[in-house]
Parts: sequence; structure tokens; C-alpha cells
Amino acid sequence: VIRIALDAMGGDYAPDVPVEGALAAAAELPPSSEILLVGRQAEVEAALAKQGAKPDRFKIVDAPDVVGMGEKPLAAVRGKPKSSIGTGLGLQKHGEADGFISAGNTGAVMVASTILLGLHPGVQRPAIGMLFPTGGEPVLVLDGGANVDCSPRELQGFAYIGAVYARDVLGRSSPTVGLLNIGEEEEKGNAAVKEAYALLQHSTHFKFIGNVEGRDILGGACDVVVCDGFVGNVVLKFYESVARLVHGLLDREVGRDVLESPAMQRVFRLLDYSEYGGAPLLGIRGVSVICHGSSPPRAIKNAIRVAIQSVQSHLSQHIGAEFAGGEAVA
Amino acid sequence: VIRIALDAMGGDYAPDVPVEGALAAAAELPPSSEILLVGRQAEVEAALAKQGAKPDRFKIVDAPDVVGMGEKPLAAVRGKPKSSIGTGLGLQKHGEADGFISAGNTGAVMVASTILLGLHPGVQRPAIGMLFPTGGEPVLVLDGGANVDCSPRELQGFAYIGAVYARDVLGRSSPTVGLLNIGEEEEKGNAAVKEAYALLQHSTHFKFIGNVEGRDILGGACDVVVCDGFVGNVVLKFYESVARLVHGLLDREVGRDVLESPAMQRVFRLLDYSEYGGAPLLGIRGVSVICHGSSPPRAIKNAIRVAIQSVQSHLSQHIGAEFAGGEAVA
Repeated sequence: VIRIALDAMGGDYAPDVPVEGALAAAAELPPSSEILLVGRQAEVEAALAKQGAKPDRFKIVDAPDVVGMGEKPLAAVRGKPKSSIGTGLGLQKHGEADGFISAGNTGAVMVASTILLGLHPGVQRPAIGMLFPTGGEPVLVLDGGANVDCSPRELQGFAYIGAVYARDVLGRSSPTVGLLNIGEEEEKGNAAVKEAYALLQHSTHFKFIGNVEGRDILGGACDVVVCDGFVGNVVLKFYESVARLVHGLLDREVGRDVLESPAMQRVFRLLDYSEYGGAPLLGIRGVSVICHGSSPPRAIKNAIRVAIQSVQSHLSQHIGAEFAGGEAVA
Repeated sequence: VIRIALDAMGGDYAPDVPVEGALAAAAELPPSSEILLVGRQAEVEAALAKQGAKPDRFKIVDAPDVVGMGEKPLAAVRGKPKSSIGTGLGLQKHGEADGFISAGNTGAVMVASTILLGLHPGVQRPAIGMLFPTGGEPVLVLDGGANVDCSPRELQGFAYIGAVYARDVLGRSSPTVGLLNIGEEEEKGNAAVKEAYALLQHSTHFKFIGNVEGRDILGGACDVVVCDGFVGNVVLKFYESVARLVHGLLDREVGRDVLESPAMQRVFRLLDYSEYGGAPLLGIRGVSVICHGSSPPRAIKNAIRVAIQSVQSHLSQHIGAEFAGGEAVA
């Protein structure tokens, strides 16, 4: 049985949205998987009742504390060991759960995942994997903001981590990896990227396709795009805002009728992150998935699916193996 | 009289497109301005004839060489002093023109502008200013790719340069400047950005609004967004590709009819760079505007307007003044 601990108190509309997401997931999940709701027992039960579900529909793990969205991560994790984040990851640490999902404070989830689950030897900090909608299959971009001023070696590590994720969870049997740069030629870029290019050139665990530019990210040039977390974070947030801008312009210029047509809804659904269910924290010893604070129930449901796939495919073990004497630390 | 030298051989469809752009501009320009077409005389005359214009419609400055789009910039500039780029900028150097525009090899234009016109004291390399469409007034993002691994001092310089451009050419009388970062808090970001924040905090020549995130670029938070050229270049090219992706998805899902409706055309025109006519090279002693290689005539026309405004407003002199003992080198 695969057991996924869900932070029922995380996100802008907790516990209602996580609970609704859990119910949606449960309707589709194989019987060999189980969702544990972690949070204030009474509030979680009330949210279940609101959805017309029995209070014992899921196992509830009581966690009296809640980490606020604006709290400083390290202080929150240290000061509130009984938060839903600390409790949920504690379950995984003690072998009582196999994965964790939260739409709560991203920094706190990252810090708590690192402290409670630990990192694979050779990994300095977890990387945030982001799935960008492309209209077709998504592309994995990492790092998404956990690591800035990345060394060439770190960028190389992202490539290995990303390739494993692409294989295990995205089902790309021979993943291709591109290095985000400002030109295609080998000699382009800043110092870290130029050195990373040299390190990646002889990779054998995936196909390194060389430099890719900003315009190539969505173009299907590769399965994984490697970049410093500063760049990744800027591009991710920019992408969200472009979709919003286009939506607003269509509303203003073309009108609500067209915008609400099924075809148009389909387009915006194709551009919607929540279809991919959150960003995996990669490099930790375990499974931890971060969702946007504003995630709808569908995103939570999809994150549960991603977490289960990560456990089933032994993602974390495979990432660990890359760093344990593999090419990634060659 | 303001004289703008236009590289008639630059761009994917030269000399036809530059010549068409020049004709469009000439129809709208004040009589106090003049366009000089720089390129192979016979080819330029043929292009004029194709458009039904007289061969003496513009002054043509013969330049027998052409720099190819794929040539190495420095080698091309050194090896082909009689290229349209070298000749056009030479006119400005010798006081026979006031501005230069090219849709040709970007790197070559940058190198030739730097060598022939020189830089204002205190400026290490020119910055590329990029105007991002927002649906309303454009936002200036710089640097667009000329400078990577920027020092905090360079980032500070971009803020001063950008603010002058916003005032002189965009007509923003009290320009606001934001520093592109991965969070709003002062302590966020990579090492260079954190230091740049400290340098910018006490600016008095413009209003520094602090950190802005990727999602804020298009949101009208500020007139100028400052970033390292690596990040700026990635985001610029990514933006272009998103507009293309949305266009493709609408075509596929919603259909050609809706896509070609006047309202929809208006939306894509609002997202179209070419409305802003190219990217100014800033920090040089003079006026040089780079257009996309695939620029349509409208973009060339708009670039001519931008170049004239830059000359009229004394943009270059004002930028020089910021660095000559101004705050930018404080």
C-alpha cells in the first residue's frame, strides 16, 4: 500500500480545497493507495462533512499547529514541530507514509523536507522541478528557485535529477536535456553555464542536446531544461502572468462569450499548471510535492497522482543512485 | 535636420523590407528629418523601384559589403569596414548622420557601435533596452543580453540608463525602476542582486520601487525593469515564444475564423514587439537601434521614429551626464 500524507491545512483555501482534492483523487486511485489527511482533526472533519463525506472516509492525523503562508521558513519549522507540515513529513521519516504533498508555505516545506527526510549524499540543496505546459507534453524545468548562484556542478546535478524524473514520472524512456542559455553556440553564456556545458557534454545517462534558448523551452526541443533557480523562478512566474495577460486582453477585446466558449476554455486549460499537480522537490530522500497556494482541488488531485507515481517508480532511490558514484559526481 | 542612417542590407528580407519601412516612415515624418539608405546602391535602387518609388527618393550611401546574420561579430566588423553596418555608423561618427538603425547581425551592430561611436565614460559595455508589450504602455527591460555575470554596479548602471530612456523616449516624467528578483523581500535573490538593491536604495534620479518578480514585469508595477542580460534575454525570447504558442493553440482549438477576427488581430497586435520598433543600444555615444532580423516594414518604420525621438531628446547626452559624476558612479 502506498500512503500519501496530504497537508490538509496548506494553501489559500485550506482545509476545504485539500479535502476536496483528496476526495477527487480517492475516486480515481487504485485500491493499493491510501491518503492520510494531516491537520487539525476537527477542522478536517468539518471540511469532510461539508463535502458530504463521512468523517472516517480517510485516516486523519491530527496536527494542532499551522504554518502561515508568510512565516519565515526555518523559524516556522523549528518553532512548530507539530504543524501539519512537520507532522506530515514526520510520518514519512518514521515509515508511516511514503509521500507528502502541501500547498502551504513553500519555503517551510522545503526546509522541513530537507531536515526531516535528508538529502541524498552529493546533493547540496533540493531542486524544485517545474512542469511547464506546452500545449502538448509538459517540459520539466529545474531549478525553479531553490538554488541561486548555482555552480556548474550544481547545474550538472539538475540535469541528472531531471532526467531521472523525466524517465520515472513523465514516462520519457530516453530523456533529452537542454541547458538554458542565451545562444545555441557552445561558447555563449555566463561563466557557470559555459562550464556546465563542458561537464554535460559527455553525459551517457541521458542525451544532452546542448544549449537551448528562452524560445525553445516550450518548443519541445527537450524533455528537461536545466537552469539556475533565479532564471527558472523568473521565467515560471513570468509565464503565469503572460497567460493571465492574454486572458485579460481576450476578455477586453474579444469578449466574454468567446472567452467562455468550450474551445477557448480548452486552450486555457492547456496552459494551466494545475493540470500537472505541483512541483516535486528533488534530491531529498523521499517524496515531497509542493503545490501553488492557490491550487484548485484538481491540482491537489493531480499532485497526489504524481506523488504516487514517484513512490511507485522509486524516483528518490534512482536519484540517489545517480549521485552515489554515478556520472553526476564523476 | 535629423538624419537617420538605415542599414538597407540588414534583416532577413533586405533590402526590400528596410526600404519599405523607410517609405512608410517618410510618409509620416516631419520635414525636418531625413532617412539615408546605406547599402549596395544598385540593390537599394532596385528595391525602391519595386515599391514604385523614384531612385532618388532617399539619399543612398553606397556600401559594397554586407555582414551576414551568422558571421562572428568582431571578425565581421574588422574584416568588412565597408559593410552597411560599418558605413552607416561611420556616417554618425563623422557627423554626417545622427542615428543608425539595423535589422542585421545584432552582435556586429553592437561591436561596431561600441568601436565607432565609443561609450560614455563609466559605461563598460552597451546595454540592450527591450520594450515588452503589456497590453497598455510598454515596459523597458534591460539588459537584454549584451551583458552577463553583471556586477551590482552594472545593474545599478542599467537603472540609471533605463530611467533616462523612460523619460526621454517613453515620456514617463517620473520613471519608476524595479529590480528583477525571485521575491519581493530585500534579502531575496542572488549575490549580485542583493548588492544592487543596496546600491539602488538611495537613488534620487528616479523612484526605485524595490524588487519585482517575474509575474510583475507585465503588470505595470514600474516603467523600467533591471536585470542581468542572461535573465533578460531568456525572458525576452520566452515571451516571443509564448505569444506564438497561444496563437498556435487558438488556431488549433478555436479555429482560423475567430483567430482572424479584427478583435483577435487587435489582441495579437497588442502583444507584438514590432510596434515598438526595435531595441536601443544604450550607453554608447550616439544613437543605434537594433531590430529583429524578421522585422516587418512596420517595425523598421517605428524604429526610425524611436531613433528620431532619441536624437531630439538628447538621450545619449543625458545618459552620459548620469555617469559623469552623477549618482550612477557615486
